[in-house]
Amino acid sequence: MERETQKEEGWIRRIPLRIAPPSLKDNTADVDRLAKAIKKASGIGDVAIDLSFAKKIPSLLREYRYRVQAVVYEGSLSWHLAGIFPLDGDHSIYGIAADLGTSTIALRLINLTSGEIKDETAFLNPQIEMGQDILTRIHFASQDGGLQKLQTVLIDRLNEEIGRLIDRHGMEPDTLVGLCAAGNTTMSHFFLGLDPYWICREPYIPSINRFDVIFAKRLDLSIHPYAPVLVIPNVGSYFGGDLIAGILASGMTRRDETSLLVDVGTNAEVVIGNRDWLVGCAGAAGPALEGGVARMGMMAGPGAINKALLDPDSGRFHLETIGGKPPIGICGSGLIDLVAQLFLAGLIDFRGEYVESRCGSRLREIDGIKHFIVVSSQDSATGDDLTLSQKEIYSLIRSKAAMYTILSTVTQMTNVSIKEINGFYISGTFGAYMDARSAIDIGMIPDLSLDLYKPLGNSSLAGATMALLSRADKEEIYSIRDRVTYVELNVNQEFMSLFSAAKCIPHTDRSLFPSVKEWSSG
Amino acid sequence: MERETQKEEGWIRRIPLRIAPPSLKDNTADVDRLAKAIKKASGIGDVAIDLSFAKKIPSLLREYRYRVQAVVYEGSLSWHLAGIFPLDGDHSIYGIAADLGTSTIALRLINLTSGEIKDETAFLNPQIEMGQDILTRIHFASQDGGLQKLQTVLIDRLNEEIGRLIDRHGMEPDTLVGLCAAGNTTMSHFFLGLDPYWICREPYIPSINRFDVIFAKRLDLSIHPYAPVLVIPNVGSYFGGDLIAGILASGMTRRDETSLLVDVGTNAEVVIGNRDWLVGCAGAAGPALEGGVARMGMMAGPGAINKALLDPDSGRFHLETIGGKPPIGICGSGLIDLVAQLFLAGLIDFRGEYVESRCGSRLREIDGIKHFIVVSSQDSATGDDLTLSQKEIYSLIRSKAAMYTILSTVTQMTNVSIKEINGFYISGTFGAYMDARSAIDIGMIPDLSLDLYKPLGNSSLAGATMALLSRADKEEIYSIRDRVTYVELNVNQEFMSLFSAAKCIPHTDRSLFPSVKEWSSG
Repeated sequence: MERETQKEEGWIRRIPLRIAPPSLKDNTADVDRLAKAIKKASGIGDVAIDLSFAKKIPSLLREYRYRVQAVVYEGSLSWHLAGIFPLDGDHSIYGIAADLGTSTIALRLINLTSGEIKDETAFLNPQIEMGQDILTRIHFASQDGGLQKLQTVLIDRLNEEIGRLIDRHGMEPDTLVGLCAAGNTTMSHFFLGLDPYWICREPYIPSINRFDVIFAKRLDLSIHPYAPVLVIPNVGSYFGGDLIAGILASGMTRRDETSLLVDVGTNAEVVIGNRDWLVGCAGAAGPALEGGVARMGMMAGPGAINKALLDPDSGRFHLETIGGKPPIGICGSGLIDLVAQLFLAGLIDFRGEYVESRCGSRLREIDGIKHFIVVSSQDSATGDDLTLSQKEIYSLIRSKAAMYTILSTVTQMTNVSIKEINGFYISGTFGAYMDARSAIDIGMIPDLSLDLYKPLGNSSLAGATMALLSRADKEEIYSIRDRVTYVELNVNQEFMSLFSAAKCIPHTDRSLFPSVKEWSSG
Repeated sequence: MERETQKEEGWIRRIPLRIAPPSLKDNTADVDRLAKAIKKASGIGDVAIDLSFAKKIPSLLREYRYRVQAVVYEGSLSWHLAGIFPLDGDHSIYGIAADLGTSTIALRLINLTSGEIKDETAFLNPQIEMGQDILTRIHFASQDGGLQKLQTVLIDRLNEEIGRLIDRHGMEPDTLVGLCAAGNTTMSHFFLGLDPYWICREPYIPSINRFDVIFAKRLDLSIHPYAPVLVIPNVGSYFGGDLIAGILASGMTRRDETSLLVDVGTNAEVVIGNRDWLVGCAGAAGPALEGGVARMGMMAGPGAINKALLDPDSGRFHLETIGGKPPIGICGSGLIDLVAQLFLAGLIDFRGEYVESRCGSRLREIDGIKHFIVVSSQDSATGDDLTLSQKEIYSLIRSKAAMYTILSTVTQMTNVSIKEINGFYISGTFGAYMDARSAIDIGMIPDLSLDLYKPLGNSSLAGATMALLSRADKEEIYSIRDRVTYVELNVNQEFMSLFSAAKCIPHTDRSLFPSVKEWSSG
């Protein structure tokens, strides 16, 4: 049953074939014979077979005695042959979904027949060596041989990791008959070897938005040479395939109700819409937010405090760390919890300033800046106090204010009232750990019913997985791309005054956050 | 006007475009921008752009300031981009038509805009070095590196000759945006690097019958790297694209009346049919005919006697040689003339035997075989007598009998009476020189009205030219391929008895040739 379903819905398909061998009465050529058999068995029409693959077909057909399973895929403009295998033996076919992040790359090994995720891995983007951020890499790409090098280290590392994945399962590279990659526009350009030069130069245009499906051999990927490689299209230089994949993964474009999607990665990206319309914002306000959320504390990793709850009686924090390891720092979601709890307990005021009378001995001044001791040196893994400085709080306030301002601007721009928002999706690691209650308490996100907040995890990888598996989802990817109205956020006078108003906890207009209850007021 | 016509009908098209340059208000990616402009201006829909070509497009668009002419072509399953050029300057585009003969290769340089044949050249197939005939070359191909070598020498030589052609006209390789090649099935396989191994082994099947259109770079052809290369499809191992091209060139498939097409090349191939049906014969009986026609005397070349007329009064021959040069030998058409004239004048009898009483001193015995002196030593360019031996006559008789038998068999098989034949096309150099009257006189071809005989010259090259220029003709090529019923000629008892009857001049059944009038009977 599962197989039948996959056959109906996939854009990469297995077709079992018992082909009549050639005879004097039927001397149709080998390649034509195969194409004819596929056409007859599948009803998909004519199948393109790359010349270099076609060269191998006569001997393969004979080796398999004309009993084969053909793997075909729907490319950009027609169906193609991706592989042929003997009819007997394991009938499953596999593929790779990839999230090509600027910092981290994540891969999944997927059974295309059953849809099962067989394995998953993540690793640092090797291009970091050539530049920590995208702009540095774009500059690097413009140097002699630079683009080639960026592509090569990426492909080599992908091949290495794909090799490890399949080795763990005793599989051969040839059984991987498809790959779907999602990345921001620049990463997609690097992956395909396209010049990103104009991405960061006015008027900021990519080389390509809609990438044709190409076969793996063209990129030297170590999977089946004629396996399709689908790169999720982008809307523009600052609205990439990773976000399109995230939109797909959220399911927001298949709902009648209006939802918001927020992706806090290197940039902050916001999408609002439903089945009928879709508006996306990205870029401009990103760095403002990034200056806070992304740089605050440490990255999410083992030992990072990611949850904090203040015990009203003892005045002590109950802390949770990633992996349950002794605390070594505070990550984004932990920071939001901490600041929310400090505010609710009255240890900081609505401006985020420490209230010395309430903090007591836990406040310490270092280099003239107030620091709140979250974990004392004897409890931390570092041997030092883990503290939260006044500066870090201000920084978080700027971030949360930027986020709230972007969300307000986007809803106002699209004439959607907060009440109409019926889903709030948060992508990324940050979204996975972030406590929505705390984020509301500090006024980072709107005061919606908590059940409307849905963390998506790596939505780029999730979307790539869906687009790899399903023909409808692959089509939805292009439909999303074509439907999104991309809006450059204008950091103008109005934005700045909204931003100022959002710099209180939870907000200057307290009526926007009725659910936030300080303990003292309780 | 001409240009408009070409634009309507060609499958390789120029599209002049004035593209709006990117701006902050329209930041469509460069490649998408081009594809969109093509779609809008041409109405041909989505255009595939190869990734490696796409990489060059952003800088080309900027170099040409977004004022370009795009060249697009209709490939096997979709439209593709073949090139972009600046809008200003020469607007003509060019292509190459190629006849890939086993012995001789012919090329034409064609203006795709006007349809004009700008230049033409022919040269020996360099693969001759690796094997005089196709079978030897197929064997050579199966040796280590053999196939690669056969392809390389062919492509190298083509590049050399294409280079010469365009140099003569001061053109650049990039202005050649299309190539159409016709060859027999094996030659087409060599050209594309496909293994011909099974072509000559039961059940005699090619690797591919219908070749996808690929771009020139894939074959290392020195024309525009993304120019389409169309190889005329074949019906089977012994019915190649050269014959399909010939059928197209004859126009027989667009006529209501039934025609015959004969191609006397390395094999003798016969096609009969009309708009509604088409039957082709090739292969089996070929060698029988070849043993005569192709090997008799010399190949058609300067100094070859290609026309002969016997003066009834002087008893001397009026001879014509190719190029008007002093005679050095006799080519096929000259031989047919000679034998016809000798028969009509009663110098040979209906069995082809020299009548000594009529020949007199012009007959000489050499090694026990009678030779007729056609040109005496003082008139020949060789310094020797040019003679026609009894053996050569018998050989011609076998050939003409084979040809007539094939034609009879084909018409009988398709239930067509000779009277219904309303066109008789003869391909090849032989057809160009052959005198239909003489061929009828010896009973080689049916006794039809002379105006029905039409020499086509190099019909393979003519067909390739048509298919390169016209979308309808390109489609007709595939339609012909699909419609032809290919029949293997069975050299059985019945064939042999027809063959015996055809071994008289003009035929045992004299009533079949009412127009043949011997002088003595006149």
